[in-house]
Amino acid sequence: MPTGPDEFDLIRRHFDWAMRRPGVVLGVGDDAALIEPPPGTQTVISTDMLIAGRHFPADTPPDAIAHKALAVNLSDLAAMGATPLAFTLALGLPAVDTDWLSSFSTSLREVAGRWGCDLVGGDTVRAPCLTISITAIGTLPVGEAIRRGGARVGDCLGVTGTIGDAALGLRLALGDGEVPPGLTQADRSHLLRRLERPQPRLAVGQALRDRAHAGLDVSDGLLQDLGHLLGASGLAAELDLDALPLSAAARRWLVERPGDIDRVINGGDDYELLLALPASLALDPAWGLTVIGHVESGPPGHIRERGGRTLPGERGYDHFRERQT
Amino acid sequence: MPTGPDEFDLIRRHFDWAMRRPGVVLGVGDDAALIEPPPGTQTVISTDMLIAGRHFPADTPPDAIAHKALAVNLSDLAAMGATPLAFTLALGLPAVDTDWLSSFSTSLREVAGRWGCDLVGGDTVRAPCLTISITAIGTLPVGEAIRRGGARVGDCLGVTGTIGDAALGLRLALGDGEVPPGLTQADRSHLLRRLERPQPRLAVGQALRDRAHAGLDVSDGLLQDLGHLLGASGLAAELDLDALPLSAAARRWLVERPGDIDRVINGGDDYELLLALPASLALDPAWGLTVIGHVESGPPGHIRERGGRTLPGERGYDHFRERQT
Repeated sequence: MPTGPDEFDLIRRHFDWAMRRPGVVLGVGDDAALIEPPPGTQTVISTDMLIAGRHFPADTPPDAIAHKALAVNLSDLAAMGATPLAFTLALGLPAVDTDWLSSFSTSLREVAGRWGCDLVGGDTVRAPCLTISITAIGTLPVGEAIRRGGARVGDCLGVTGTIGDAALGLRLALGDGEVPPGLTQADRSHLLRRLERPQPRLAVGQALRDRAHAGLDVSDGLLQDLGHLLGASGLAAELDLDALPLSAAARRWLVERPGDIDRVINGGDDYELLLALPASLALDPAWGLTVIGHVESGPPGHIRERGGRTLPGERGYDHFRERQT
Repeated sequence: MPTGPDEFDLIRRHFDWAMRRPGVVLGVGDDAALIEPPPGTQTVISTDMLIAGRHFPADTPPDAIAHKALAVNLSDLAAMGATPLAFTLALGLPAVDTDWLSSFSTSLREVAGRWGCDLVGGDTVRAPCLTISITAIGTLPVGEAIRRGGARVGDCLGVTGTIGDAALGLRLALGDGEVPPGLTQADRSHLLRRLERPQPRLAVGQALRDRAHAGLDVSDGLLQDLGHLLGASGLAAELDLDALPLSAAARRWLVERPGDIDRVINGGDDYELLLALPASLALDPAWGLTVIGHVESGPPGHIRERGGRTLPGERGYDHFRERQT
């Protein structure tokens, strides 16, 4: 009895890509994948799960979903200073939509290629709503990972890029009517793009591994993630909100709605790196960092605002609360 | 502003285990995990996604879910001949139930310890229904993996354990009233246990790597998975249904309902290994294999039943069809 292709096989064909990087021995199509990282390296592993309607609006185009699902995992690799090698994809689908699958897989392949990793395995099942779990695998030289603990008193706190765009972009995406009227179309596009197309800061992470004292990626909100870094390091910090790197769009937003600074520093989804490192590194223009504060001794995890103002107290986005929009 | 524990942190504490195997450098709690497999090995990676109500009945106890979720991934590692090292867990929860989490995490830790792997990372999100995605990571000596392709004409087809118990156990679990009346209570317990507590055949896989010519784990149904092995090897097979290894419970079931042989060979969820290997290995009692047929030349994937009977034509369980119960 010959066994012909079934719906599963058809789905899998969307994800059976021929490209194989050095280090990837066996990809999609067997019981498991095989990789062989270079000698002298450690393997870095990160997993995230994204649910439609929770981590992205349910009507997000498939190419944007593919981008974001891989980017958020690679952002974790970037935060460790790793070089991506491979990833697996577990995909829960409410129905089989060939057009959707084609667009999703094409985009996933494109961004995977851009960021230097191969899809090596996965699983496809029926689920009540679109569910994507990616496990990203990277490598770095033994002992050079950037961890959360390890910040030192006097370290600068440097961040890549700008903070808060995605949180403001989410308000636009949800269309809840509280958007400042003075925002230009270009501002809107910028904020939405930052929500949908985060860029994992792989080059900065790789350049600063074994040099930054501590770091992580800002995904839950700047304040919450800074708290994580400080807690793991057993130290406190002074934060200068006036120094926050903001995009022109975010600046225009805050001129009209200054209270939304709360969303900027608590909103999450930034996928920028937050690093504790010596001033000589933090101020080197090669890395494009903005210094937003300093590590100091004090109660572990405590954040003191420069100038003594009280920091907006909301926590980063918690998926077990309702969205506060 | 000190950042205190939130609901997320509380969940994570259920999964922050202190145990660290050699090779696991950094586990739960940072942006990503770090492993350092032994020199001379390749790393084996497998991902599965399980959805409540689809891959297990929604009222399955948390300890059984933990067991099965890890077992099905480790079964893939077993099929490659790998030794487990670590795994990540992405968990989608409809609500936070501390008792459930405690039971689930305790059981997961227990089976992970038994099977020799550490939880090294993960993600927890809110989802419409319980969703579990595990990525298992193992190691094996370079070049010794058992793959699906590679079977040779004349190879014996050997399987571990017994086939069909889980498919019959599923009928019991669903309680659809078509259960043979002659089944004993012990039979029922056995079949349900085989459904809920598959045992990854790690020892056999590790012993026969670099010796079996081809292999995989039987998860989609014996006929379908045999078709996969033959397709990848470009060969055909003769299958002897009379030689199928059946438990006493399955035998009693089939005496009363002989037509259910169809479910036995197509039902899936066996998590036994199917190997193509020389007779000297297949018949060695050390491995506990049962020879159920032979590889022969012929149309790739073609399965001919010994004695010329026509094989029941149903395919293995496809999650994109409704369950046929």
